[in-house]
Amino acid sequence: MDDRLRKQIDFILEIDKEKNILRQTHLSGHGRRENDAEHAWHMAIMAYLLQEYSNEPVDIGRVMLMCLIHDVVEIDAGDTYAYDSEGLSTQKEREEAAKERIYSLLPQDQKELLVSIFDEFEENQTEEAKFAHAMDNFQPLLLNNSNNGGDWREHGVCASQVYGRQSRTKQGSEKIYQVTDQILKENIAKGNIKEDRA
Amino acid sequence: MDDRLRKQIDFILEIDKEKNILRQTHLSGHGRRENDAEHAWHMAIMAYLLQEYSNEPVDIGRVMLMCLIHDVVEIDAGDTYAYDSEGLSTQKEREEAAKERIYSLLPQDQKELLVSIFDEFEENQTEEAKFAHAMDNFQPLLLNNSNNGGDWREHGVCASQVYGRQSRTKQGSEKIYQVTDQILKENIAKGNIKEDRA
Repeated sequence: MDDRLRKQIDFILEIDKEKNILRQTHLSGHGRRENDAEHAWHMAIMAYLLQEYSNEPVDIGRVMLMCLIHDVVEIDAGDTYAYDSEGLSTQKEREEAAKERIYSLLPQDQKELLVSIFDEFEENQTEEAKFAHAMDNFQPLLLNNSNNGGDWREHGVCASQVYGRQSRTKQGSEKIYQVTDQILKENIAKGNIKEDRA
Repeated sequence: MDDRLRKQIDFILEIDKEKNILRQTHLSGHGRRENDAEHAWHMAIMAYLLQEYSNEPVDIGRVMLMCLIHDVVEIDAGDTYAYDSEGLSTQKEREEAAKERIYSLLPQDQKELLVSIFDEFEENQTEEAKFAHAMDNFQPLLLNNSNNGGDWREHGVCASQVYGRQSRTKQGSEKIYQVTDQILKENIAKGNIKEDRA
């Protein structure tokens, strides 16, 4: 086998490990915890189906690829829960090291391409990145809401924390944010998300 | 929420169930059985990275979408193992009913679009469908080979059965088929795949 294809296959086998990186989100129907590969698959399909709600036109192929690969770094860096402030403080450093190791398995041109897409997602400046982030937020929100907010209750999350994260969805899609806001209000009313103390 | 978005969200929640449809393939590192959503995620990334080996140029966005959605029907129809002749005899009928039920959750225009992509995959006439099938074969082959052919051994699969399926990879990619053939020969030599009786 030639060297280029060998490298591509090495990367393909390496990312298989993403199927073992568990998130805090549970599958609908009060299921088990979701893993990163499942989350990415779901996000990519959602991006395709919901692209009409992006604030600005997007290159949907690029958004889908961004969704598919954005969590590869978690093979080394682990999943950092959205409301884990200690984990969040070291997340960037851990993910940069992971990015270098894992994408370096690929031929140089494909390494550069995938790193540029990952960096674009992280920097969150382009319309594609903003819409991908909206999907990254909306996907677990839908699952969690379908389970009566079990993940929020388990972690004792406050409204200000959830809004802090979810309000970024607005940058990608005002429409999806309207639905997000409605779902959050319902879950605050039910006590699934704690109200902040005055 | 308006009716269109409600339908899209219903479909998005419905396909969450694909994460519970188990395949016969095991994850690398002698892991647990893989599910359909993980398989689809892996295939879509592989399609992107290996597109240079397609026999003919392909619309890679369409191939990726095809990879992502091709197993949604298995939510109702279940996974049919590639070498289960009894299951294969009823597969088409089961999958057609599933296709109608599941894609009908979507707004009509998106139902028609996704059904057309699923049908294109099944009919296997376009370059996009042929390359997606090559990925559908190559993905479990790589995992199984990384586990010393455990899935073939478990099912007592013969060389003629494996070649019967894997030779379709040639239609999508001669290059990927060369690697497939090499891997199969190694696994026959090791006794992981049974030689057919003369």
